[in-house]
Amino acid sequence: MHRTKVTVVEEALDANNTIAAANRADFDRHGVAVVNFMSAPGAGKTTLLERVVTGLPHVRVGVLEGDVQGSMDADRLARLHVPVTQINTDSGFGGECHLDANMVRSAIPALALDEIDLLVVENVGNLVCPAEFRIGEDARVMVSAVTEGEDKPLKYPLMFRTCELVLVNKIDLLPHLDFDLDALQRNIDRVHPDVEQIVVSARTGEGIDEWREWLLRVATRDEVAA
Amino acid sequence: MHRTKVTVVEEALDANNTIAAANRADFDRHGVAVVNFMSAPGAGKTTLLERVVTGLPHVRVGVLEGDVQGSMDADRLARLHVPVTQINTDSGFGGECHLDANMVRSAIPALALDEIDLLVVENVGNLVCPAEFRIGEDARVMVSAVTEGEDKPLKYPLMFRTCELVLVNKIDLLPHLDFDLDALQRNIDRVHPDVEQIVVSARTGEGIDEWREWLLRVATRDEVAA
Repeated sequence: MHRTKVTVVEEALDANNTIAAANRADFDRHGVAVVNFMSAPGAGKTTLLERVVTGLPHVRVGVLEGDVQGSMDADRLARLHVPVTQINTDSGFGGECHLDANMVRSAIPALALDEIDLLVVENVGNLVCPAEFRIGEDARVMVSAVTEGEDKPLKYPLMFRTCELVLVNKIDLLPHLDFDLDALQRNIDRVHPDVEQIVVSARTGEGIDEWREWLLRVATRDEVAA
Repeated sequence: MHRTKVTVVEEALDANNTIAAANRADFDRHGVAVVNFMSAPGAGKTTLLERVVTGLPHVRVGVLEGDVQGSMDADRLARLHVPVTQINTDSGFGGECHLDANMVRSAIPALALDEIDLLVVENVGNLVCPAEFRIGEDARVMVSAVTEGEDKPLKYPLMFRTCELVLVNKIDLLPHLDFDLDALQRNIDRVHPDVEQIVVSARTGEGIDEWREWLLRVATRDEVAA
């Protein structure tokens, strides 16, 4: 029984990778760089996007929003006059807890790829399954908020291990928490040695310039350490 | 294709409910009340348990810990001399993002049900899939930390809708956040009218007595508003 289940999962991931490659080919044909943006619920993804999407010189940004239901984050970003497309994963049972390559593929006709240079895909808030599904991205970024504790890399290692960048967010709250930033950064390094980390506060703006510059490097196809 | 998928999900949930009923019968035979304890990663479930598991008069508590991998939370609780059993969902692909009835069933032989009155099942940190799987529980409790923002009930309604209690945690951080507690509580009420809410701080102890009393009511089979 267990063996059967693992086989099914492997086949599903194979199918996903095939579709992800098709997405990648479409993005390449239009010269669009793609970032898969992930975190736990409430870590600050949307606010971190609001901080940078309109400030990238010569880079036209589009956003693909993934949510179980609703379009609150999409509405926030649309207010900044950024083209936003919404995917809802709801299917009557609470919906899928992640985006996969096929869901992204279904949205491609709606994404005016000729009019953007960088597509940021804001995934469903979840530290487990989004990490298992490639969508055709150039790079993966995750947000780990200091309010979530130092242990998250050890409990959700696949997410931390498959990202090119970890944004350590809500750093403005550090004086009010029993939290050891060094311990978090050591734990990140333990599951993904030498992964790039930027300490940020979406609220105060700390680290936001560095985050913007990182996105600019992806958008202009400079090397991103993987 | 979409219709096929929904059918598969329905069948899986039917099988889950059958196994959940078997779990329930086992728990009843041993007179054990069961709480399914859920939240996003880092909302404070383990700390909220540490605060109460040894302080319930005449109620012997056991804990079943669900994690993708590792046993950090189980180790923390074991230090309090509470019997703790660990389930790891890891299966080579990052693991399941939730506990289901069958995973809990597989742990029952390891749970000394004759020696406890209340079993708290700490689910995998995730606001989506854990809400879809009954495990044979008497009641469901979720934690919503104020650091996660006011919008979570609207984005993850199934989780909020299927709980008997919402613990609004990290209330000690309120002075340091741009956060509207009334808005969160209105949103909770919108997706689950009149659900019981307790505002708590695992850190300062605010609301912990009320949380302990709620658990005591479940353990002694007093009516819990559903």
